[in-house]
Amino acid sequence: MTRKLHLNAFLSSVGHHEAAWRLPESDPLADTDIEYYQHLARVAERGKLDSLFLADHPGLWGDISRRPSAALEPTLLLTVMAGVTKRVGLIATASTTYNEPFNLARRFASLDHISGGRAGWNIVTTATLQAARNFGLDDLPLHRDRYARADEFVEVSRKLWDSWQDDAIRGDKQAGVWGDNDRLYPPAHQGTYYKVAGALNVPRSPQGHPLLVQAGSSEDGRDFAARHADAVFTVQQTLEEAQAFYADLKKRAARFGRDPETVKILPGIVPTIGSTRAEAEELDARLAQLIKPEHAIRQLANILQVSPEELPLDEELPAHLTTERHIEGGQGRYALIVGMARREKMTVRQLIGRMGAGRGHRSITGTPGTVADAIQHWFESGAADGFNIMPPVLPSGLEDFVDHVVPILQERGLFRTEYTGLTLRDHYGVTRPAHPYSDQGRG
Amino acid sequence: MTRKLHLNAFLSSVGHHEAAWRLPESDPLADTDIEYYQHLARVAERGKLDSLFLADHPGLWGDISRRPSAALEPTLLLTVMAGVTKRVGLIATASTTYNEPFNLARRFASLDHISGGRAGWNIVTTATLQAARNFGLDDLPLHRDRYARADEFVEVSRKLWDSWQDDAIRGDKQAGVWGDNDRLYPPAHQGTYYKVAGALNVPRSPQGHPLLVQAGSSEDGRDFAARHADAVFTVQQTLEEAQAFYADLKKRAARFGRDPETVKILPGIVPTIGSTRAEAEELDARLAQLIKPEHAIRQLANILQVSPEELPLDEELPAHLTTERHIEGGQGRYALIVGMARREKMTVRQLIGRMGAGRGHRSITGTPGTVADAIQHWFESGAADGFNIMPPVLPSGLEDFVDHVVPILQERGLFRTEYTGLTLRDHYGVTRPAHPYSDQGRG
Repeated sequence: MTRKLHLNAFLSSVGHHEAAWRLPESDPLADTDIEYYQHLARVAERGKLDSLFLADHPGLWGDISRRPSAALEPTLLLTVMAGVTKRVGLIATASTTYNEPFNLARRFASLDHISGGRAGWNIVTTATLQAARNFGLDDLPLHRDRYARADEFVEVSRKLWDSWQDDAIRGDKQAGVWGDNDRLYPPAHQGTYYKVAGALNVPRSPQGHPLLVQAGSSEDGRDFAARHADAVFTVQQTLEEAQAFYADLKKRAARFGRDPETVKILPGIVPTIGSTRAEAEELDARLAQLIKPEHAIRQLANILQVSPEELPLDEELPAHLTTERHIEGGQGRYALIVGMARREKMTVRQLIGRMGAGRGHRSITGTPGTVADAIQHWFESGAADGFNIMPPVLPSGLEDFVDHVVPILQERGLFRTEYTGLTLRDHYGVTRPAHPYSDQGRG
Repeated sequence: MTRKLHLNAFLSSVGHHEAAWRLPESDPLADTDIEYYQHLARVAERGKLDSLFLADHPGLWGDISRRPSAALEPTLLLTVMAGVTKRVGLIATASTTYNEPFNLARRFASLDHISGGRAGWNIVTTATLQAARNFGLDDLPLHRDRYARADEFVEVSRKLWDSWQDDAIRGDKQAGVWGDNDRLYPPAHQGTYYKVAGALNVPRSPQGHPLLVQAGSSEDGRDFAARHADAVFTVQQTLEEAQAFYADLKKRAARFGRDPETVKILPGIVPTIGSTRAEAEELDARLAQLIKPEHAIRQLANILQVSPEELPLDEELPAHLTTERHIEGGQGRYALIVGMARREKMTVRQLIGRMGAGRGHRSITGTPGTVADAIQHWFESGAADGFNIMPPVLPSGLEDFVDHVVPILQERGLFRTEYTGLTLRDHYGVTRPAHPYSDQGRG
C-alpha cells in the first residue's frame, strides 16, 4: 500500500486570518452559531479529511474589540458536529493544567461513544497568565512543572480509559448479572500530582483511548509528544526545519520504545487559494489591509512578553529578544517568531502582517495546483506525514481546499477517495490500544 | 391565567426501578446508545414537558454486577438530545465540589447557546466518598463546607455568565471593532474558596443564566435552594410532609428577598401505569420479583453508612439508626429512608422493595386517570408546583405517561397543550436575569 497523506481541518471561527471577520461575507456571531459549525463539519467530511480540530484556551484575552478567542466549549461543539457526520474525526483541545483527570477522561470517553469512535484529544498545558488567573493562581505554573503534571495526567487518563475491559458488560438478565466485576480495573492511582481511585463511570469506548495529539515544540513538548502522541501538529516555515523536526521527533519516539511510523507529523499550512495566482494574491492583500496594527502589536507583545511600546512598527525586534531567551509561556511559539523575524530581518510591521495570516504558520498562496504541489513536495521529502490545514477564511477556504485541492491529491494517489475505516484511529493508521488485561494486551 | 403544572422527565438508563434492565425489552447497553436517548428526548418533547433531566455522580459504585451509574457525561448527552428537539428543556446535574467554576460555567453557557436557551443546571455538592477519592481526597468534605463552597461557586458562576453584556458584540466591520470593551465585566472574584479573574470566553447566552435547580433537603440544602434555585426537585412520601416542605421552602425564599412564586417545587413520583389497575400492579410485582436482595442491602447499607451485616432481611432497621443521627453524606436521603421505615414499621425486606422502585420517591400505581388524579390532588393542595416524573421502566413508562396521562391533564386545563415560550425559563415561568449593568438590570 502506498503511503497516504493525513489531512486535518483546523477550524477557527470565520478563519485563521485575524481580519477575516471584517470581510463582507463573514458573520460576526459565527462563534455561537451551531449551523455554521455543522456546515464546516459536513464540508470536512465531504473532503474525506482524517479529522477536524478545535483549539482552545480557558480564558479570554482582555480586549474584545478585535475578534477574541470566544468559543463554545470544544467537547460540546464537537458533539454537535458528531450529530451531522459519520466518519470525520473530531479533535478537541483540553488543558491538563486546568482540568481534573477523572472529569476530562470521562468527557473524552463520552465523546468517543457519542461519535462512534471519532474522538481525539489535543493535549495542551496552557501557557498563559490569563488562564492561570481564572483558576485561583496568581502566576503561570513553571513550564517544566506543567509538562510533568501533563505526563501524569495522561498516565491517569489511560488507566481510567482502561477501567473496564471491553467485554465487562455481560447483560445476563436470567442470572441478574449486568457487569462482570472481574473485568473492572479501578486505577487506584497515587502519584506526585494526582490521586484517583476510579473506576471510570463510562464503559470502555469504541477506540479504547481517543487519538492523542500534541502540538508543543519545546524540548519538554517534543519529549511529551514522542512519548504520548499519535499525531503531532507543528509550526514549520522552511523545508529544512521541517525535515529536522520530523527526524528529531521520530528518533525521540524510537528512543521511547515506540514505532516511529505510529507518530504522524502534520505541519500547519495556511492556504490562500484562487483560480489564478493573481486572484489568490488579491485575497491575501485584501486581508492584510484589514489588519489593525495597534491590535496586532499588542498580541505580539503578549507572546514576546514585552510591552507594546518596545515594538516600534518600522523597526526590527529589540535586541534583547533572542531565541535563547528563557520564558515560562509557550516556548515553541516564542522561538519560532523571533527566529523568523531575525532570519528574514523583518520589521515589526512585516512580522505582524505575516502573523496575521496564521500566527507563524507557513502560508501558501496560489492555485489549487500550487497548494497540492507544496503539500506533495514536503510529504515526499521526509518533512511531513500530512498537514494541518488552516484556511485564512472560513467556510470558503475549507470549501476551496476540499473541492479543488483534495481532488488533485486524490488523482495523484496521495489521498484517500473514500474512508476505509470507521474510527479516527483507523484514519490515521494507528491501532486501537488493547486492554492491558485482555489476552491481546497481555500477549 | 390559570396556574399550570410543570412536568420534568427524570431520565435514568432503562428506568428508575433497579431491576428494570432485567425485563426482556430492556437493552443492557442503553447507557451508551445515542439513539436511545434521542428517542427519549423526542418523547418528552411530544408530551410538551417543561424539561428532561439527567442525574450524575462523578464516580462508579464498586459493584457492576447490578446495573451501576455508568453514564455518559450529562452536558454532552444533553447536547446530543438538543440536536433532535426544539423546545424541551435540558437539565444536567453537575457537582460544585469536583469542578472549577470557570470550566463549568462555560459548559452551561455553551449548552445554553447550543440548545437555543434550554439549559438547566441541577446543582449538587456530591455526598459520596467514592467521588471524593476520584479527586485526590481521602475523606468526604464536611457537609457544611460543601454547601459553603457551593454557595460561592454559584456566585462566581453568575458573575461569569454576566461577563458580557447582551449587546457586547458590535460587529462593526467598517471600523474594525468586533466587540465593545466597555460592555465586558470580568468577575475579578476573590472569595474564600475561589479566585477567578475572568471574563468568561463565551458571550452571554440566550437565557442569561441557565435555569438553576436544586434537590437537597437538609437544612443547608433548603437554604441553598431558597437562595438560588428556580426549581426544586424533592422527595416527598405523604401529602402532609409535602405541604410542610412546600410552605417551608417558599417562606425561606421570601426571607431571602425572593418572590416565592419564582421557586417551583416538584416532588418526584414513580408512576407505574396500566390500562387497568391490575395490569399496573402486575408490572410492579414483576419488577419486585427481579430485585436481588443482596445487592439492594448493600446499597441501603451504603446510604445508611452501616455494614450490610447490620441489616438482617426480616428485621427492622437497627435501633442506633435514628433520624437525628448526624452523617456527612446525603442527609436528606438518610432521614427520609429511616423516617419512612420507622413510620411504617418496615422490615429491611419491605424497605428495599419500596426503594427499588424509586429510591424513596412516592410510587403511584394504576390507570392514567389514577396518576392524573394523584398529580392534580397535590398540585391543588399546596404541595407542588409540578412533578418530577420518574418512570420505573424506560422508554415505555415515559411513553405511557406522555401519551395517556398528559392528555388527561391537558383536558383538565392543568397542563399546556403547546409550548408557549422558547426557553426553559419561559416554560417554568421564571424571568431571564437582566444583566446587572444593563439599563434594565440597574433599574
